Amino acid sequence: VNVEVDIGAEMHRWASDLFPICRSLTGDGVRQTLRYFHNLLPNLAIHEVPSGTRVFDWNVPPEWNIRDAYVADDTGRRVIDFREHNLHVVGYSEPVDTWLTLDELQTRLYSTPEQPDAIPLVVSYYTRTWGFCLRHRDRQKLKSGHYHVVVDSTLDPSGHLTYGELLLPGESADEVLVSCNICHASMANNELSGPVVVAALACWLMSAPRGLSYRIVFIPENIGSVVYLSRNLAAMKERIIAGFVVSCAGDERAYSMVASRLGDTLTDRLLRHVLRHHAGVFKEYAYLWPHRGSDERNYCSPGVELPVVAFTRSKYGEFPEYHTSLDDLSFVTPRGLAGSLDVLKKCVSILEGNKTYRLTCLGEPRLGPRGLYPSMNKPGSGYEEDLTKLMNVIAYCDGNHSVLDIAERIGIPAWHCLPIIDRLRHEQLVEVAAR
Amino acid sequence: VNVEVDIGAEMHRWASDLFPICRSLTGDGVRQTLRYFHNLLPNLAIHEVPSGTRVFDWNVPPEWNIRDAYVADDTGRRVIDFREHNLHVVGYSEPVDTWLTLDELQTRLYSTPEQPDAIPLVVSYYTRTWGFCLRHRDRQKLKSGHYHVVVDSTLDPSGHLTYGELLLPGESADEVLVSCNICHASMANNELSGPVVVAALACWLMSAPRGLSYRIVFIPENIGSVVYLSRNLAAMKERIIAGFVVSCAGDERAYSMVASRLGDTLTDRLLRHVLRHHAGVFKEYAYLWPHRGSDERNYCSPGVELPVVAFTRSKYGEFPEYHTSLDDLSFVTPRGLAGSLDVLKKCVSILEGNKTYRLTCLGEPRLGPRGLYPSMNKPGSGYEEDLTKLMNVIAYCDGNHSVLDIAERIGIPAWHCLPIIDRLRHEQLVEVAAR
Amino acid sequence: VNVEVDIGAEMHRWASDLFPICRSLTGDGVRQTLRYFHNLLPNLAIHEVPSGTRVFDWNVPPEWNIRDAYVADDTGRRVIDFREHNLHVVGYSEPVDTWLTLDELQTRLYSTPEQPDAIPLVVSYYTRTWGFCLRHRDRQKLKSGHYHVVVDSTLDPSGHLTYGELLLPGESADEVLVSCNICHASMANNELSGPVVVAALACWLMSAPRGLSYRIVFIPENIGSVVYLSRNLAAMKERIIAGFVVSCAGDERAYSMVASRLGDTLTDRLLRHVLRHHAGVFKEYAYLWPHRGSDERNYCSPGVELPVVAFTRSKYGEFPEYHTSLDDLSFVTPRGLAGSLDVLKKCVSILEGNKTYRLTCLGEPRLGPRGLYPSMNKPGSGYEEDLTKLMNVIAYCDGNHSVLDIAERIGIPAWHCLPIIDRLRHEQLVEVAAR
Repeated sequence: VNVEVDIGAEMHRWASDLFPICRSLTGDGVRQTLRYFHNLLPNLAIHEVPSGTRVFDWNVPPEWNIRDAYVADDTGRRVIDFREHNLHVVGYSEPVDTWLTLDELQTRLYSTPEQPDAIPLVVSYYTRTWGFCLRHRDRQKLKSGHYHVVVDSTLDPSGHLTYGELLLPGESADEVLVSCNICHASMANNELSGPVVVAALACWLMSAPRGLSYRIVFIPENIGSVVYLSRNLAAMKERIIAGFVVSCAGDERAYSMVASRLGDTLTDRLLRHVLRHHAGVFKEYAYLWPHRGSDERNYCSPGVELPVVAFTRSKYGEFPEYHTSLDDLSFVTPRGLAGSLDVLKKCVSILEGNKTYRLTCLGEPRLGPRGLYPSMNKPGSGYEEDLTKLMNVIAYCDGNHSVLDIAERIGIPAWHCLPIIDRLRHEQLVEVAAR
Repeated sequence: VNVEVDIGAEMHRWASDLFPICRSLTGDGVRQTLRYFHNLLPNLAIHEVPSGTRVFDWNVPPEWNIRDAYVADDTGRRVIDFREHNLHVVGYSEPVDTWLTLDELQTRLYSTPEQPDAIPLVVSYYTRTWGFCLRHRDRQKLKSGHYHVVVDSTLDPSGHLTYGELLLPGESADEVLVSCNICHASMANNELSGPVVVAALACWLMSAPRGLSYRIVFIPENIGSVVYLSRNLAAMKERIIAGFVVSCAGDERAYSMVASRLGDTLTDRLLRHVLRHHAGVFKEYAYLWPHRGSDERNYCSPGVELPVVAFTRSKYGEFPEYHTSLDDLSFVTPRGLAGSLDVLKKCVSILEGNKTYRLTCLGEPRLGPRGLYPSMNKPGSGYEEDLTKLMNVIAYCDGNHSVLDIAERIGIPAWHCLPIIDRLRHEQLVEVAAR
Repeated sequence: VNVEVDIGAEMHRWASDLFPICRSLTGDGVRQTLRYFHNLLPNLAIHEVPSGTRVFDWNVPPEWNIRDAYVADDTGRRVIDFREHNLHVVGYSEPVDTWLTLDELQTRLYSTPEQPDAIPLVVSYYTRTWGFCLRHRDRQKLKSGHYHVVVDSTLDPSGHLTYGELLLPGESADEVLVSCNICHASMANNELSGPVVVAALACWLMSAPRGLSYRIVFIPENIGSVVYLSRNLAAMKERIIAGFVVSCAGDERAYSMVASRLGDTLTDRLLRHVLRHHAGVFKEYAYLWPHRGSDERNYCSPGVELPVVAFTRSKYGEFPEYHTSLDDLSFVTPRGLAGSLDVLKKCVSILEGNKTYRLTCLGEPRLGPRGLYPSMNKPGSGYEEDLTKLMNVIAYCDGNHSVLDIAERIGIPAWHCLPIIDRLRHEQLVEVAAR
């Protein structure tokens, strides 16, 4: 059984199930999506925050729901139809039911001449308006005449913003934050890849005892992190030792990260390390506008200052399918999703084992009597490489180097250090000096 | 009105007025020069320090004045004439009136075969001697015979060393030092460019309220800074937060700086920043002999250790006209002077605004309701660039980054940050955390 | 008299005297070698440590002595003969006296097909066995038949490990450690070069008063440093400010160092500095297995953490003659040995003079009246270079820069700074601020 492909295929299946749902900052699409994840993660708590609630410098927006929307010609034929693709409607469009000439209609249409086959994503969360998005190729086919324009939506100031929260307590109160979004309309990489990878990570975390605690959130982008921070800031500042925004995590073109605001937190060092050894080549974006763009903007903001980085494959804004209907389930692959999951599992494994160890003897220890000397019997056994790793791990178990420090110092992946440390602990050659 | 060219032309005019005066470490030429600046800067105080005064490891030299000097042939024709150019006499020449053969005369002459049309600058401040300097081309024309040699000078051990001092108090006692020289004989870049740029800077400083205080000195080189430090060291060490030696500031060939002794003071960071963004390319010289050579030698010396750097266009010692009669008013230009003034004004503006700010809200603030969102209406309006600057300035108003820190972090000139900070203060989105 | 060649030739003579002796971790060969050095260094103390003594994670091995060893054919002719070269016997071979067929004998033979003229070094200190080493070319000449195999050795569990220790007290209790090995069978670079250079250094140290104390040890490799540390750790941790493992110090191909475990001790900085200026090009190996390999493994180990680096010419493991009979007295040269001695003398001179100085005056001092101004009379006298060094040394006598710091800052060898500092002290222009 190829576990990696299996879990990749499973995640892709989840994304396919969720793809048709119309998600936005608020509304029933978000609830439906969270219910899906609740089936996978029974401890997922679903929270509702009333529209209008003051959160830091913002207010929770009215709840938006939409039943139908279309532009029909005078024969009643729908030339733009929300039922065909939910990107056809500008997000948060207010309700409308009217007739327009083509010229009038054009002022409400959005298309991209450079990508004539793509429906662009357009939203207007904080300015009341309405509009339609369509493939430029289709727009050019529109004929003069009168059009019936209908948006059957509601913007409810007494509604709610909905988000999911999964708290996985471990031995230690120290927490790892994993954050992803459930707010974009049907898009695969810049949306569903995030929550499906995070859900798979959560399943894996729940399958074994944990030294650390985990705070996993499924939130609408930006306003969601503001809402979440406004309710949990004190606890988060006290407990979070590392955090990840997971977004655009499903294609195979690249591995990327957006560094934290100061660029030197444990999470920065960790993700750089993992990506360097996992992927060889990766892209690091500084925390500078317009590189940053997802919830790291709030997690890292002055006064909040959590050690959070954004982990992506092709970063938001850096691939041509971004924010269009081309960001679909063919762009996101089982293999791409599985690669992201593997990176996060490596990060978590290192965080769990990232203690500081101290050698229990002075001088170099004897390996032979303890059976620690790697076997050189088998040709091609990697004997010399194993001995090199072992000797170098031992050399830096000095009570000052964490496992990540050791790995960086001796130039090997930290996940190669962990089993060596386990063996040395078993032989009582090293002991924990500090977390 | 092109203000920059205007002030450049004005400074060049001042230099032209002052060019003919014979200046040296001491004497009436220095007094005459300081009186000229006193007309521009009525608060300029002129100080006299008696010859022989012990100053640190040195003594103030006797006062030197010269009325006339020449070498005449036996027909009475002056073949070398101080009245033609005051570089013809070795600086601090003692008086003489004698007849010499050409061979005897040759031992008292200085010329430069490699620059046959240049009169070299020669001085002998601390060893009593006399001599003449001339163009090598003219020297070769001297015929055998007897010459009447006259230096009509005085070296008065009861004289004085003269310097000017302008103190501009501001809201804060923190001071910026600006230091220039008024001691060299007729030379334009390696002398007059310094005081005319500094005088223009002082006029500009006096035209508006100041947050900081300014200590502006017009002194003879080296002995002048020793004298000045010996009288003001305690106050200077307590108050000076940044300082500039301004010399060779009038040509157009280059921008340069000599770093402070440790190379990492606020002034070093500031001038590097301004030159990088103002000039694109500039030369930085380490504080190593023989790069250093002006008053920074004393301001930065062990035990004094002020945060002072030298700002120059083509640095002393690095241009062929240096210390010759070719360093004249055609080498120094209005445009060259105006560029130096602009650099210093930028430095001062940044220093005045270089506080640390703290965002008053948590998470990213809303820009729209405050009218802070840059207008995207006008095509080519630079909307994206403006938004980028705004978002990045906000991201680092964390109470730890000064404005200069922010500018360096986000890669824009600090003088672009200042109006953004002003706007944010006006909207009460940031508040001062510390100077 | 060319002193450098003289001392080089002297050291090479010592190595020639010592070459035939069969040394190992323990035994009379070690004692004989130490007695030779005792003749040169009368204060050398010779210590005996009983076999079986527990030292950190190790035990002192039994004492090994060997009188004779050979493989003879059935005519009695010795085809492998310990008396010809003591590398012919596997180190620590247990006694044997038996007859073997060629096939049986082959399982006990070691040779290197890639180096058919070299006898390889093979040892088995901690696993009881016996064997013979020979040139591969000779091995191929062995004919079928029966062979008489004799190893006339003893492995005495009541024996001792022997090492030499020379303590040279100076004004200060601060110590410099110099460590070398006296355990390998007849090999010139990877063995004798170390102790002969160290002995010459010790002779030189004893010839003049010392500010620092010196701890010089002649020990068997690895187990020797464990033994020595186990007996002296507290004093060494308190006193040692710098330390050198000297090994493979006699060829002319390269200069090299193995950095300390953290790579940033005074000794690291010092040896880098000396090698950069002495040799121009040198190789630095990180303290990573398998680069490290001599006693630095114990001196730098966690909990011991002495500031020790290994100094070598061609590093152990990095030259083809390594651990073979080709590492002989033609590979090691007087010039090679003299170069290593010179490096160590430079290191010691800098350590002795590496104080922090403070200028006694403010501002730049006057050089002329003190006769410090370098003479410019002689053409090609290096006047400008001398002035540059003098001015730059003065500039950094600020009470914060040690002599090594100054040298690094101004880019000249620290041994050029020392006479300048002496001159400045004589003129009372600088005073000691701190060691």
